Amino acid sequence: MNQPVFENRLSSLRSKFDSLEVDTIWITQPENRRYLSGFKAGDGQLTESSGSLFISPDQALLLTDSRYTTQAQEEAAGFEVITHREGVINSLSEIFDRLKTRRLGFEGGYLIWDLYEKAKEKAAKHSPAVEFIPLPGFVEEMREIKEPGEVEVLGRSAQLIADVLAQVIEESRPSQSERDIAWRIETLVREQGADGVAFPPIVASGPNSALPHAVPTDRRIGEGEPIIFDVGARVDGYCSDMTRTIFLGNPSSYLKDIYHIVREAQGSALESIRPGIESTEADSIARDVIKKAGFGDFFGHSLGHGIGLAPHERPALGPLKQEVLRERMVFTIEPGIYVPGKGGVRLEEMVILEEDGVRVLTTSENFYPF
Amino acid sequence: MNQPVFENRLSSLRSKFDSLEVDTIWITQPENRRYLSGFKAGDGQLTESSGSLFISPDQALLLTDSRYTTQAQEEAAGFEVITHREGVINSLSEIFDRLKTRRLGFEGGYLIWDLYEKAKEKAAKHSPAVEFIPLPGFVEEMREIKEPGEVEVLGRSAQLIADVLAQVIEESRPSQSERDIAWRIETLVREQGADGVAFPPIVASGPNSALPHAVPTDRRIGEGEPIIFDVGARVDGYCSDMTRTIFLGNPSSYLKDIYHIVREAQGSALESIRPGIESTEADSIARDVIKKAGFGDFFGHSLGHGIGLAPHERPALGPLKQEVLRERMVFTIEPGIYVPGKGGVRLEEMVILEEDGVRVLTTSENFYPF
Repeated sequence: MNQPVFENRLSSLRSKFDSLEVDTIWITQPENRRYLSGFKAGDGQLTESSGSLFISPDQALLLTDSRYTTQAQEEAAGFEVITHREGVINSLSEIFDRLKTRRLGFEGGYLIWDLYEKAKEKAAKHSPAVEFIPLPGFVEEMREIKEPGEVEVLGRSAQLIADVLAQVIEESRPSQSERDIAWRIETLVREQGADGVAFPPIVASGPNSALPHAVPTDRRIGEGEPIIFDVGARVDGYCSDMTRTIFLGNPSSYLKDIYHIVREAQGSALESIRPGIESTEADSIARDVIKKAGFGDFFGHSLGHGIGLAPHERPALGPLKQEVLRERMVFTIEPGIYVPGKGGVRLEEMVILEEDGVRVLTTSENFYPF
Repeated sequence: MNQPVFENRLSSLRSKFDSLEVDTIWITQPENRRYLSGFKAGDGQLTESSGSLFISPDQALLLTDSRYTTQAQEEAAGFEVITHREGVINSLSEIFDRLKTRRLGFEGGYLIWDLYEKAKEKAAKHSPAVEFIPLPGFVEEMREIKEPGEVEVLGRSAQLIADVLAQVIEESRPSQSERDIAWRIETLVREQGADGVAFPPIVASGPNSALPHAVPTDRRIGEGEPIIFDVGARVDGYCSDMTRTIFLGNPSSYLKDIYHIVREAQGSALESIRPGIESTEADSIARDVIKKAGFGDFFGHSLGHGIGLAPHERPALGPLKQEVLRERMVFTIEPGIYVPGKGGVRLEEMVILEEDGVRVLTTSENFYPF
């Protein structure tokens, strides 16, 4: 992304200051930080931030520690980098003074309670006192609608993982272990030039396929068993995500039936989703197919999720949170049926919502056995 | 770890209920969750928990969602697994009823502000009302002193990464890229049977060696330049961490001098640290050597950090937080000097503190060129 992209994003953000009744915004969420500044460092652990942003109507500061100073200066061209030596809390007074902060918006969805308490105490003692205002997730909302540059990168990320998965499926043989195949996926993703995998690959065979979040084991794959591959890459920071279920040999008719039901559920969603539809409605289009077939209790998760700088982001396509799906949102469609002891099937495409409906980004040919 | 280990840990935890004036403890921190229950799942993102623990004097519950139910039941033998369908908040009433909770201890150092606010609201409305009490980090404190089983695993993790690094250093040649070497490290770590790397490997050559947290680039290594390798493995959940700086060919006398200063700083710390010493004192033993040599401004980070289930955990060995170092703590000793434009040197050992002093776990022979 080039500098004007970040300037536009900052302008959008600043246009919300008045309605939010804040004069400074504190960004602690790592993907929001990257989205607004271009600073690419991740957080080692939740409790180990590589930096945060303080944005006022006319200034933009990036507060970090000495490990990241140089990287921040190189990557966050629109921000002035401030290096703290004694922690974030001890730098707040200086920042409040510089930005003339009186009302600070903070990200309640990504701030640890301890840090909040300490910062608030510091702010209350500051002269003049600074008030803390929790922000709605509006940077997350900005991130939902992908810019042209983001669509391009997401397309590359999706194509890369689709190609890798095609190769891995072609290479798969009975008696390989789940763990070996998962490692092969990680290796190919890196060799193809991705930053790495977007999340640890899932390779779940036989009974393990009934676990939606299976961790690859040393189990060796048998003939005719289902194997679920749920994989993603990260390319220039942007994630992809796709799932296929295959069988090495001939599956039982029970598993074939499940497969057809999941495929039909996915197909209904792919065909019906249009800009303007509620996310809960999108979920129920697919869920109803599975329910009618008698497997409603075996589809425990949501239909899909937004994807971008984070592997999971807004919008959520599930039965609970309602949100209108709009053009240029990018999300997954991934129904599944998991029958304990018998096995499971999940099929997932990553799509972009366009004027006429969804366009599949994880394009591939040879993955649907029947 | 076997079941009695987890039972002992739970007993230790429960012995603190009275002094903390709580009747239930809510564990949200992923490593604490694993340490107390055996449940190995990590959190995909900070805002995507794979579960949390609720522990009362006579019950132990693990609250998760359907993706993790089976795994939790298999791994957390001492816990009753409860699967929520509509989020953590909507399950709280049932849990408070079952555990007869009136005073709930929570982990302020690992709870998101939003979740805290919603949970507290729910708790206030519950009958009888439940009070929220922030806990000091006492599970982190338990984790500081390693049990014999943990020492054994940490030793294996350290030996594995030392062996991998020895091989990588032997293979290193001018014109290889940092990124290729970093990927080679990841590959070897996996091939040796580790869960994976403990953190993304740092391979920083030439001017990049002056960045303490450099991200590997496509830069190709030149003759005589410093290369900093900062690498770690995760074995059965336990992390290792070590750093070496090498030169392919003959370095400048300036870099050689820096190397000797860092080596001397590290040596002083390794020789002097004994049980009972303050962590700040340990830090200043090494820091004083670097200061006296005139490079005090170029050693911006702490001397070291505890390591275990997390790559960074208590104790901190730095100039700020004071804590007594005790027997069976495992931590790193990693002084460094970073001169912008000229390059840097960091040397890191992972050690266990025993009765007579530290014992190095990252044992290797051929890494100190002079």
